[in-house]
Amino acid sequence: MPTLVLIRHGQSEWNLENRFTGWWDVNLTDKGIEEAKAAGRLLAEKGFDFDQCYTSLQTRAIKTLNLALEEMGRLWLPVTKDWALNERHYGGLTGLDKAETAALHGDAQVKIWRRAFDTPPPVLEPGGEFDLAADRRYAGIAIPNTESLKDTIARVQPYWESTIAPDLKAGKRVVISAHGNSLRALVKHLSHIPDDEITELEIPTGQPIVYELDDNLAATDRYYLSER
Amino acid sequence: MPTLVLIRHGQSEWNLENRFTGWWDVNLTDKGIEEAKAAGRLLAEKGFDFDQCYTSLQTRAIKTLNLALEEMGRLWLPVTKDWALNERHYGGLTGLDKAETAALHGDAQVKIWRRAFDTPPPVLEPGGEFDLAADRRYAGIAIPNTESLKDTIARVQPYWESTIAPDLKAGKRVVISAHGNSLRALVKHLSHIPDDEITELEIPTGQPIVYELDDNLAATDRYYLSER
Repeated sequence: MPTLVLIRHGQSEWNLENRFTGWWDVNLTDKGIEEAKAAGRLLAEKGFDFDQCYTSLQTRAIKTLNLALEEMGRLWLPVTKDWALNERHYGGLTGLDKAETAALHGDAQVKIWRRAFDTPPPVLEPGGEFDLAADRRYAGIAIPNTESLKDTIARVQPYWESTIAPDLKAGKRVVISAHGNSLRALVKHLSHIPDDEITELEIPTGQPIVYELDDNLAATDRYYLSER
Repeated sequence: MPTLVLIRHGQSEWNLENRFTGWWDVNLTDKGIEEAKAAGRLLAEKGFDFDQCYTSLQTRAIKTLNLALEEMGRLWLPVTKDWALNERHYGGLTGLDKAETAALHGDAQVKIWRRAFDTPPPVLEPGGEFDLAADRRYAGIAIPNTESLKDTIARVQPYWESTIAPDLKAGKRVVISAHGNSLRALVKHLSHIPDDEITELEIPTGQPIVYELDDNLAATDRYYLSER
């Protein structure tokens, strides 16, 4: 039976400051580091093990994975990092805190950007503080300048199909350390969650989510490991 | 011009206790962690950057790499881990401190095992405390039960030829985080050091060694980054 575990990165500096982060590369807080280690200890304690790890190109997710693997004595596992698992790109909201955003755009508009399935925020204007055009890690990639959740799904889903699903079908046990919205994309697909519900689904930081899958990768169960 | 940097892992728990470690998977000490971070800071400060990272399947080398990459803001780089870069397997000496070994076998014999090019220590008997047969990371690998430096070279060299050298020839900048003897194997090859001299060459922990190579990967210079 294929095993899949999803972990959203531990608390980041901008989770704490309540700022839109997206593709901006912030670090974990001390609490986030502890969450990542606790996730690894819980996985080890419950007898979980893996053959292949996936993560994004963002420090907070990579570090969460590394810290969890170290607690499991599994730093030696292969890790594939891909931008397809990055957080949703928040466009022109990047770097703003929720209060600044509400003051600029109004609460109702902010709620639409955060919760609508297919309405992207305003684009990130080039040349500003949060422009990633010069970031070497994204060389050769058409860096988005904003994304709706639908846009995020449109890059996560093909990566799942081409790369992660074949590993699971080959019998590999897989862990994915990623972000609120790239994980929403996977949960939507695996648990058949409708467009208007997936935006409301909160994925807590540092909590391993276990998927039990059948041989066709249809989900037979999904649960938080801390609740079993 | 291809760039290659070698880093021996930071101080490990058994470096500190002066015990033969080999394939046994000990962790870094606090000093070792600091050495790894300092290596990353030095590389960043001197303007070094990489496209591909290699390390062994051993925690102390992987962690050294991860800590250095984090200091460089380069956790997102691809990392390939392979047993071919593991430390020399010290056979039946594994776990013994230098004094215990000398008491058991005599100083002269210990010196031969440590410094002879092609004399392996006694084999590690199966079933003991340090037997790695049940360690999943080495599944499918013919785990050695002892190695001379010559034996170590015999597995490092093909990996260099098949995997690392092609990356360098393709113009990738490469960093390798590994161990005293797997790095000796590379230094012997690149710097044409004779059999009877390579065993005397000490590779300090946590010190980036820079190789400047020509397009055929012949070494034109080799230096400790801390000395430039």
